[in-house]
Amino acid sequence: MASINGLGSLEDGVLVLPPDVSASAFREVLLEMAKVVGNDNVTVHTRQSMKPDEQGHYYNLPKEHDLFYVLEKEHFLAGAVVCPGSTEEVSAVVKLANKYLAPLWPVSIGRNLGYGGAAPRLRGSIVLDLGARMNKVLDVSSRDCTCLLEPGVTYFALYEHLQKNGFQNLWIDNPDLGGGSVVGNALERGAGYTPYGEHFSFHCGMEVVLPSGEVMRTGMGALPGNNTWQTFQYGYGPYPDGIFTQSNFGIVTKMGVWLMPDPGGYQAYLFSFPKEADLPEIVERVRVLRISGVIQNAPTIRNTLIDAAVYGPKSDYTSNKDVLSSSEIDEIARKINVGRWNIYGAMYGPKPMRDVQWEALKASFMQIPGARYEFPKPRAEGEKRTVLHMREETLKGLPNTYELGWLNWSCERGSLLGFSPISPATGFDANKQCEMVKRRFKEFGFDYIGTFVVGWRELHHIVCLTFDKTDPKQRKKAHRCIELLIDDAAAEGYGEYRTHLCYMDQIASVYNWNGNAALKFNQQLKDTLDPNGILAPGKSGIWPARLRGRGFELKRSIEPGRL
Amino acid sequence: MASINGLGSLEDGVLVLPPDVSASAFREVLLEMAKVVGNDNVTVHTRQSMKPDEQGHYYNLPKEHDLFYVLEKEHFLAGAVVCPGSTEEVSAVVKLANKYLAPLWPVSIGRNLGYGGAAPRLRGSIVLDLGARMNKVLDVSSRDCTCLLEPGVTYFALYEHLQKNGFQNLWIDNPDLGGGSVVGNALERGAGYTPYGEHFSFHCGMEVVLPSGEVMRTGMGALPGNNTWQTFQYGYGPYPDGIFTQSNFGIVTKMGVWLMPDPGGYQAYLFSFPKEADLPEIVERVRVLRISGVIQNAPTIRNTLIDAAVYGPKSDYTSNKDVLSSSEIDEIARKINVGRWNIYGAMYGPKPMRDVQWEALKASFMQIPGARYEFPKPRAEGEKRTVLHMREETLKGLPNTYELGWLNWSCERGSLLGFSPISPATGFDANKQCEMVKRRFKEFGFDYIGTFVVGWRELHHIVCLTFDKTDPKQRKKAHRCIELLIDDAAAEGYGEYRTHLCYMDQIASVYNWNGNAALKFNQQLKDTLDPNGILAPGKSGIWPARLRGRGFELKRSIEPGRL
Repeated sequence: MASINGLGSLEDGVLVLPPDVSASAFREVLLEMAKVVGNDNVTVHTRQSMKPDEQGHYYNLPKEHDLFYVLEKEHFLAGAVVCPGSTEEVSAVVKLANKYLAPLWPVSIGRNLGYGGAAPRLRGSIVLDLGARMNKVLDVSSRDCTCLLEPGVTYFALYEHLQKNGFQNLWIDNPDLGGGSVVGNALERGAGYTPYGEHFSFHCGMEVVLPSGEVMRTGMGALPGNNTWQTFQYGYGPYPDGIFTQSNFGIVTKMGVWLMPDPGGYQAYLFSFPKEADLPEIVERVRVLRISGVIQNAPTIRNTLIDAAVYGPKSDYTSNKDVLSSSEIDEIARKINVGRWNIYGAMYGPKPMRDVQWEALKASFMQIPGARYEFPKPRAEGEKRTVLHMREETLKGLPNTYELGWLNWSCERGSLLGFSPISPATGFDANKQCEMVKRRFKEFGFDYIGTFVVGWRELHHIVCLTFDKTDPKQRKKAHRCIELLIDDAAAEGYGEYRTHLCYMDQIASVYNWNGNAALKFNQQLKDTLDPNGILAPGKSGIWPARLRGRGFELKRSIEPGRL
Repeated sequence: MASINGLGSLEDGVLVLPPDVSASAFREVLLEMAKVVGNDNVTVHTRQSMKPDEQGHYYNLPKEHDLFYVLEKEHFLAGAVVCPGSTEEVSAVVKLANKYLAPLWPVSIGRNLGYGGAAPRLRGSIVLDLGARMNKVLDVSSRDCTCLLEPGVTYFALYEHLQKNGFQNLWIDNPDLGGGSVVGNALERGAGYTPYGEHFSFHCGMEVVLPSGEVMRTGMGALPGNNTWQTFQYGYGPYPDGIFTQSNFGIVTKMGVWLMPDPGGYQAYLFSFPKEADLPEIVERVRVLRISGVIQNAPTIRNTLIDAAVYGPKSDYTSNKDVLSSSEIDEIARKINVGRWNIYGAMYGPKPMRDVQWEALKASFMQIPGARYEFPKPRAEGEKRTVLHMREETLKGLPNTYELGWLNWSCERGSLLGFSPISPATGFDANKQCEMVKRRFKEFGFDYIGTFVVGWRELHHIVCLTFDKTDPKQRKKAHRCIELLIDDAAAEGYGEYRTHLCYMDQIASVYNWNGNAALKFNQQLKDTLDPNGILAPGKSGIWPARLRGRGFELKRSIEPGRL
């Protein structure tokens, strides 16, 4: 990376340019943007300085690329990074981008681990790093149990802010890792594990910079002097918030989020089941309990290996480097004292209410032969945390990073590629999903590490493919494996809820009911809102007219060798 | 109304024509539409046949006008009614509308009482009566607790369908009146009173005919052969469902709705409070209990007169025709044995859980001096139902029509005009809202009939202005009163969540943050999706380019005499 001050001395050839922008125009737009945000807040990517920070510092992700690259390291590469400090600066930068046709790729914190990190879909895009300077908790209301956030507020930061400012009564909801952006995760429709886990459902009000640079507020925010922007989601007329999620129609610069008041009691639990074949019955029981509200949150049904991977790399358990057999996994399960499937859940509320819930949970799950349960035990000093201790924190909205452990399952500094199909919450579908993934994983040489999460009514299958990015063969295998799985899934009626940059076009192409009506609709919105095609081209498979059909879409690789 | 067969014999002058459409073109488009939907499914409005069915048959609302008209009867008048029988027919009709620039005003059932009924915003529009023939329950899943509905399914019909087909375990959620469309109410972002009361939140998946005639499915519906259209709301990429609510961007022809499984126990209750001045403390307590989840649904806080009006007209209580004084209302409260404010709520779940809730409710509300509570008592045969008996049904999702009673408060066959501002759920705001409305109502001579509903976090103030539409003076007063209240509210930061046809432009004009950014955004979407401006022009204040600025917007009346 080079600072803006060195821009003049850089040769054209070392710049990473977006399409339709000459080296001189690129220099010009960056200099103009630097006038808006300040010289210190623009950095230029140079091809000489390609070494990312890979020292295991996950919290210092370089903004210019995907830490867990699947294709060539250079594939999804930013041309520069610009860090605005306010909505006004975002608006001004967007207007400049329009003038020069310079694509912007907004990120909040830029985590999005397993889905592309902070890297732009279109090479040469300018990463608009909102989180670097726009990271304030703008408001917290203990009366309404709401907050208003800038994109750079992480789960850790929000939690700390509440603790330090007398809001200990308000709980947050965080996903498995606490380092991400609260706003960014909701915009990607991510989820956590308290009753407020479905993050988009619990957001309230947005401020959006449109691709034209115009600034809009949604919901009650459209009413000047309103006092309900963070309490009532809809406002008047069409409710647009959803089209700013997983999209490239606008840049969210503020978002309201609902917070859960302390429920007056909490108890995490673990149910373990001994057999791999127990999965269908577990899912059947979870569905009934979840839809009826006995289970108040999204419980996770984790396989043995995900827990094993949290505790240590594969080499801690076996010298076998091939895909583990069922009996080898049984062995590991015994060693770490978990089941082949494990439900990590929690109950929220006063004890008499939890007692009623608990009886219902026990009555159901303990009917599965060999089932057992436990509660987190107090630890002696220095005693190792169990996964249940870790989940106890996550399920309570205490941000943490324990789950990073399983990245290193198969190699040091392992990489993650996420595959997340949605299915009905039935035993039949869970089993089919599981078999489908295990078959492909075996074919390509990956251990199946997975978890099932029941949202409101659906089953999220979170498949964690870990690979060694330093090995081009492994990357090709990982890539081809996921490509095939997306098509395997679509053939059975399963679709992904979110994906890595690599698969955005492919997944958009399988959500193709009635001649691709949904994608065409998105393209139509894109073309009117962003006629110059400057905002996050290619996000979710949506390309602007200017760039459509010019070969930027990623075709399936057909066979690994052709990557 | 005339049938399509008589169209040739009608003189031009008796047709009610939309702008930009000649009498001959209007005849032609209707004949073309009749070829699509069948002659029996097109009726033409004629100015000779202006008498609506006002025999008190609320379930046979004429589709061509607002039963509760506020302006002149002719103001919001349809030119014809077309009843399509399928999505394909809707699509074909939309394409014809584009060809002839004939505006369509889609309705599901066409209730929308107090907000304009089935009448179109733009005079001469063709009412597209979806409910007449597209009224099937397409699917019910007892496994997933979901259903898929056409727009013509009423709450009554859905309830009956579930009862008759072995789905007694599934509860529905209905608003105060059961005759409306389940789909239509969710699209208007209406609400009911069980824990599933926030209808848009509990919908899942749409099929939409776009203004071009193209058909799209949202969420997982975009994936061919999917098995999760009704279980997972979002799908992949931008989530568009919200922009099809309170909007004119598409016609929803199918919608998924989540159903609540029988919670395993139910108990309705009433807390009554003796003094009008108790309101602030009631709201403060409800907010805390609601946000914490002790109250699982949206409880209503009703004033004396709304209950009184359910039991009988004003003349049953007093000979006074003026606005009632506080002591007169005290008198009525005593007579019907309710408080000045009354919380009608319910608890859902097994008894041990309800017991815990009940203790918390009692501990809070009974601290208000003079508070009392009761449960619905079994009725002897022939004994009159109390409002609590009625709410016991509504809060359980049993569709009914009891609340129609209060329409006739001040005259026989009274009309309703709804005014529904949103405010923070605080005692301070509830009080301010209440005083604001009472002041204006007193000025214009209306008794204040109102209820406060706490949604997820906000307070809906539902003000029910009842008036005699046969008296032009009363209409003018009602109209001016609401106009002034909208501006009064906006000046305090309060905005309406939904409105009558008359006020769509005014309310759009007060949601004007940053130079009307939200309206401009809606207009931009409108112009790209509906370039010919044929779909529901003027809905929510959104006019298409073709009709914008041509005088169709309703200006404030300035003073009653100028209506």
